[in-house]
Amino acid sequence: MAAVRLPDGREMEVAPGERARDVVARIGPRLLKDAVVAKLDGRLIDLDAPVDSGGEFAVVTKDTDEGLEVIRHSTAHAMAQAVLELYPGSKLTIGPPIEDGFFYDIDVAGRITDEDLPRIEEKMREVAERDLPIEREHMSKDEVTDLYRENEYKLELIEGLEDGEITVYRQGEFFDLCRGPHVPSTGRIGAFRLQNIAGAYWRGDEKNPMLTRIYGTAWATEKQLKAYLKRLEEARERDHRKVGRDLELFTFSPDVGAGIPLFFPKGEQLRHQMESYVREVQTRYGYDHVWSGNLANQKLYEKSGHLEHYIDDMFPAMEDGETKYRLKPMNCPSHMTIFNARAHSYRDLPVRYAEFATLYRYEKSGQLNGLTRVRALTQDDAHVFCTPDQIQSEFARALDIIREVLDTYGFTDYRVQLSLRDTGSDAGKYIADDEKWARAERELTEALDAAKIPYEPEYGEAAFYGPKADFMAKDVLGREWQLSTVQVDFLQPGRLGCEYVDENGDRKTPVLLHRAVTGTTERFMGVLIEHYNGAFPTWLAPVQAVVIPIADRHNGYAGKVRDRLAAAGIRAEVDDSLNSMQKKIRENARQKVPYLLVVGDREAETGSVNVRRRGEGKKQTAMGLEEFAEEISGEVASRSKELTVGASGS
Amino acid sequence: MAAVRLPDGREMEVAPGERARDVVARIGPRLLKDAVVAKLDGRLIDLDAPVDSGGEFAVVTKDTDEGLEVIRHSTAHAMAQAVLELYPGSKLTIGPPIEDGFFYDIDVAGRITDEDLPRIEEKMREVAERDLPIEREHMSKDEVTDLYRENEYKLELIEGLEDGEITVYRQGEFFDLCRGPHVPSTGRIGAFRLQNIAGAYWRGDEKNPMLTRIYGTAWATEKQLKAYLKRLEEARERDHRKVGRDLELFTFSPDVGAGIPLFFPKGEQLRHQMESYVREVQTRYGYDHVWSGNLANQKLYEKSGHLEHYIDDMFPAMEDGETKYRLKPMNCPSHMTIFNARAHSYRDLPVRYAEFATLYRYEKSGQLNGLTRVRALTQDDAHVFCTPDQIQSEFARALDIIREVLDTYGFTDYRVQLSLRDTGSDAGKYIADDEKWARAERELTEALDAAKIPYEPEYGEAAFYGPKADFMAKDVLGREWQLSTVQVDFLQPGRLGCEYVDENGDRKTPVLLHRAVTGTTERFMGVLIEHYNGAFPTWLAPVQAVVIPIADRHNGYAGKVRDRLAAAGIRAEVDDSLNSMQKKIRENARQKVPYLLVVGDREAETGSVNVRRRGEGKKQTAMGLEEFAEEISGEVASRSKELTVGASGS
Repeated sequence: MAAVRLPDGREMEVAPGERARDVVARIGPRLLKDAVVAKLDGRLIDLDAPVDSGGEFAVVTKDTDEGLEVIRHSTAHAMAQAVLELYPGSKLTIGPPIEDGFFYDIDVAGRITDEDLPRIEEKMREVAERDLPIEREHMSKDEVTDLYRENEYKLELIEGLEDGEITVYRQGEFFDLCRGPHVPSTGRIGAFRLQNIAGAYWRGDEKNPMLTRIYGTAWATEKQLKAYLKRLEEARERDHRKVGRDLELFTFSPDVGAGIPLFFPKGEQLRHQMESYVREVQTRYGYDHVWSGNLANQKLYEKSGHLEHYIDDMFPAMEDGETKYRLKPMNCPSHMTIFNARAHSYRDLPVRYAEFATLYRYEKSGQLNGLTRVRALTQDDAHVFCTPDQIQSEFARALDIIREVLDTYGFTDYRVQLSLRDTGSDAGKYIADDEKWARAERELTEALDAAKIPYEPEYGEAAFYGPKADFMAKDVLGREWQLSTVQVDFLQPGRLGCEYVDENGDRKTPVLLHRAVTGTTERFMGVLIEHYNGAFPTWLAPVQAVVIPIADRHNGYAGKVRDRLAAAGIRAEVDDSLNSMQKKIRENARQKVPYLLVVGDREAETGSVNVRRRGEGKKQTAMGLEEFAEEISGEVASRSKELTVGASGS
Repeated sequence: MAAVRLPDGREMEVAPGERARDVVARIGPRLLKDAVVAKLDGRLIDLDAPVDSGGEFAVVTKDTDEGLEVIRHSTAHAMAQAVLELYPGSKLTIGPPIEDGFFYDIDVAGRITDEDLPRIEEKMREVAERDLPIEREHMSKDEVTDLYRENEYKLELIEGLEDGEITVYRQGEFFDLCRGPHVPSTGRIGAFRLQNIAGAYWRGDEKNPMLTRIYGTAWATEKQLKAYLKRLEEARERDHRKVGRDLELFTFSPDVGAGIPLFFPKGEQLRHQMESYVREVQTRYGYDHVWSGNLANQKLYEKSGHLEHYIDDMFPAMEDGETKYRLKPMNCPSHMTIFNARAHSYRDLPVRYAEFATLYRYEKSGQLNGLTRVRALTQDDAHVFCTPDQIQSEFARALDIIREVLDTYGFTDYRVQLSLRDTGSDAGKYIADDEKWARAERELTEALDAAKIPYEPEYGEAAFYGPKADFMAKDVLGREWQLSTVQVDFLQPGRLGCEYVDENGDRKTPVLLHRAVTGTTERFMGVLIEHYNGAFPTWLAPVQAVVIPIADRHNGYAGKVRDRLAAAGIRAEVDDSLNSMQKKIRENARQKVPYLLVVGDREAETGSVNVRRRGEGKKQTAMGLEEFAEEISGEVASRSKELTVGASGS
C-alpha cells in the first residue's frame, strides 16, 4: 500500500481509490470543513481527486492565499452560471481569479449594466444554496470541441490545448472548460460582491469583438468581505488625488505635461520635509550628498548599457548635431562619473553618494496615475562604492536607515523579498564568479537575520548583475507598497571603469550597492497622503498651527503668537479671513491642521492660547504661549507620530 | 566776450583763441598737473582745444573714469609708436582703451612674442621720456588717404568716415587716425605694463588676415598699477576653477556635458547651505516655495513668448510626435501655471512663489567658464503676483531680503542700476499705460530712497514690459558682479491669463515681480569661492572642524569629539589618515577648514580640545569640548563672518 507524507513528517497509508477528502477527514473531521483543496507533490488538487498513489500531501484551507485563490475562481464559475441562467445563449470566454477577487469576460446575449449586478448576485446566492457538487471531468479534444460547437471563443482556446490534458468542470447544468482545482460544491464558494462592469476585447485585441467583463470580489468569510469593502471605501475616501486637491498640495497641467506634478506651497513644504528628513538620516549614517543635474550626454548611457535596455523608458533625445543629451532616467551613471573624477584608494572606501535629483522616465500616458506613477520622479537614491569585504556591513547600514525611516512614518509591518540566484540550469547567466555570489547572498541573509527582519528568499529572481532586497511595507489600510530597495551590482562599476587601488597597489573594481529608502518622493507622498488620510504628523504637516482670533481686535495678538512660533521654526499662520470664528475652526479642521489656537481677550491678557488638537472635536486646552511653543517644538524635534501637546490638558 | 560756466555755477570769461589748458590754469595751476582732458558742453576735448566760444566747462582729472580712459588710449598710441620704431614697416589697425587697459591690433613686420614685451615696454618708456607734444590735426579724406596709402587697413576704415570730420593725432614722427581726445604729451601717459599677445582677425572675421593683438594695462599712477597687478595675481590665485579643484568642490565631465557642473560632496554641501540660507530668509519674509520640475510642454513657451525671443538660449526640443518638451529656461511660465491652477481674490495677493529649480540654457560652448557661465543654473528665483498698489511694498520687501543676504556674505559695497523708460521719442514702445509706468518708476525710486540704497537711473534701459533694478556688488578684490535683480512685469501675466477678482468683483490681471537674490547658485558659488578665496565662514564651510588625534591611541577620543559636534549639527570629521600629526595639520589647513582640534592624552582625560583657528598659524587655544561645541554652534547660528571661537584664548 502507498502512503502520503504530511508536512509534519507523519506518514499515512492510503487505500486504493482513496481521495484527498478521505485523508483530510482522517487527519481531522473539522479540518474538512476548512479545507478548500489539497496539495499533492506540490500540485493543487480537488478534494475529490484520488491520492492512492501516495506522495507529499498537504491540506489547503480557506484562510491561505492559495485557498482564497481557489475560492475566487469557483466564485467566478458561480457567477458565470448565474449569467447563463439569466441571459441564456451568452457565451463564456475566460474568467480567472485576480487580486482580491475575479472577473469573467462574457459575450452576453443581451446587455448587462451595473444596475443588473444585484440581480446576478441574487442568482449566484441561489446557485450557492443549491450546493451543487463541483465535478472534474477529463475530455478528449473531440468531445470538448463538440461540447463548445456554438462558442467560437472556447473553440479558439481548445485549439491551443494538448489532447489528453483537457478538463471540464461541471456543477449541475453548468460546465466550463477549466484546469481547476475548485471547491467541492457551490455551497463552498466565497462571500462575494459584484463590483463593476467593463468592456474588454477578446484576447485584448481591439480588432476582436468587445466582451462584457464583470468584476467581483470574493473572500473566505462575510467578515473578511466586509473588512475589504470598508478598506476599499476608506481607500476611495483617502485617494491622494482627491486629498491632494482638498489640501492644496499638488496639481497637473497640460501646459506643462502629463505626469509632471506641480506642487503648491503646501505640497512643496511636504516634499521638502520628507527630503530633509531622509537627508538628515543619511548624513547621520555617513552618507555624502552629491549633485549631478538632470541630464547627461547620451554616450554615458551607451557606456552604462541603459540606452540599450532602457530606451523606451527615457524621454526623447535633445539633439544638437552629433551631440545628443538625455534626461537622466537614473543617477547611477552620473554618480560613477563623479566617483571616477578622482583617484581612490581602498582606504577611501566605502564611498557613499546620495542625491535627491529629479529623474525623468517616459511612462506611457495611460499608466500615469496621480503621484503614484509619474514622469518626473525624485528618488532618495544612493550609491555605495565598496570592497567585497564591505558588502555585509554596508547592507546592514542600509537596513538600519530603512528601518529607522519606515518606522518614523509608521510603516512597521513590512517584509523583504530577497532575490537570489537560481543555482540550477540558469546558473550560467549570472556575471561575477560563483564565490562572489555565494558570499554576497550569504552576507545579505546574515545581515537580515541579524537585524531580525523577516524575508522570503526568491530563487531565480536576482538580476544577472547581483542579488537584491526589496522592502514591501503595509500601510494603515493593509495595502502593500514596494518602497525601499538595496541592490548589489557586480556589473556597472566595471562597465564605467570605476577603480580603486587595493592594499597591494593593484587596481580593483569596486562593488556598487544601489539603495533607495522611501523610493520616489512623489510616489511616497501619494502613499503617505493615503496612509495618513491627509492628517500628517506635526513634524510633516505643511501648516502646523493656525491661530484663530475670536474677533478682529485679536488679530494683533494672533500675529504675535504666529511670530513667536515662527521664531521657534514652527509653520504657523493666522486665519484673518472674513469668516466667522466657527467657520475658521471648521475650515482649518478640514485642512487637517494639527493645532488650532483660538485667542481672544483673556489669551491676549495672559499671553496664552486655547489649543484644539486635531481629531478631538471641541475639546480645548488653555496653555501659556511659551509652554505651547516649547511642547510643539519638542513634538516636531522627536518626529512624534502622535499629537502630544496639551495631552494632559483640562 | 564769451564765457565758460564751471560745474559749481561760476562763470569765467574767455578771450579769443583761449584754450582749455588756459582756463584750467586760471582755475588753479596745480589742477593743470592733474588734468588729462576737459569737457565742453558734455563733449571731451583736448587741453589744447579752443574754448573761446564758451559753454559748460569741466576739468577731467586723471583720477576719474573718463580721465583714466583717455590715459589708456594715449598709452595705446605710445605702444604703437614703440612697435613702429622697433618693427619698421608694421601697419597699425585699431587700438582702443578697454577695462583696466588697452590693446592694439597690428600687422607686424616680423613676429612679436610674449618675450618681446619687455623690449617694447622699454621703448615705450623712451617715448614717454621724450615728452613729445600730442597734437590734433584735421585732414580731408584725400589727405588722409594719401597719408595711409600703404596701409590697407586704415584705408578701409577711412572709407567709412565722413569727409570733414577726420582727425589725426601726431606725437613726433608718429601719427594715428584717431578721434581722440588725448593727454597733452607722451610724458603724461599712464603707469603701464604690457600683459600678453593674442591673435585677432582683422575686423573679427576669420576670412581676414590674422593680426597681432598686444594687451596692456595702464593706470594714472604707479601705485594704482601695482595695486591692480596685485589684485590680478590674487584673482589668479583665487580662480574658482583652481580652488574648486583644490578643495574638491566640483568638476566637469564630457560624459555628462559641457557646462553641467558635477558637485563633489563638499561642493554639494556648499550649495545646500547657500540654498538653505536663502530659503530660510525667504520663508521669514513670507515667500512660499513651489516645485515645478525641469521641463514643460513647448506650447507653454509659445504662449509666454519665450520660444519666439529666447529659442537660441534653449536646449533642443524633446519630440514625441506632435508633442515637444523643452527644458525650463526660466521659472516664470511654470509659476504662472501654478498660480492659474486656483482662483484668486484680491485678498490672496500678494502671492509669492519661490523655487530653487535647476534651469537649462544652451550657452555657446565658447562662452562657458567654470561655474560663472554654465548651462545648468539653479536660480534663487521668485515671482510675486500683486496688485498695482502693492508694487512699492513688495519691491521694498525684496530690497530687504537682498540687503540681508548680501550683507551676510560680506557684499556691503553695491550700487543699483535702475532701468527706466526713455520718455522721449521711444515712449511708444512700452506696454501698459503711462500712468502705470510713471507710478511704478516713482515707487521703485521711493523704495530705494527709503532703504538708503544708492542707485543710478538709466533712462531708456527698461525692458518694454516694465522697469527693473539690478544690484552690482563688489567682492573683496573690488570686482563688480551683477547679482540680485527685481523686475516689474506688466506683460506676461496677461499673456498667460493670470487673473484675480478685485474688491468690486471685476477680473483683473496682477502685476508680476521677478526677483532673484544671489541670482544663480552655481555662478554665485564661483563668485564666493574667489571672494573668500576658499576660506568660507564657518556656517558655510563644507567641513567646519577636523579632529586631529596626536597618536593612533587618541582615535577613540577623536571619534567622541566628532560625534558630540555632529549631535550639535556641526560638520566635523576625524583625520585618521596614515599621515603624521604635523602633516594632518598642514593638509587640513590647506583645505581651509575653520577649526582644527588637536587631541591627545591630556584632552582625552579632561574632555577638552586644542583649537587652532584658520589663519592663525600655530596658535592653539585649549578649551573644554562642551564650551567649544557651544561657541561654534553660536557662531554658525549667527552666520558670523569671522571665526570667533576661542577668540579670548590663551
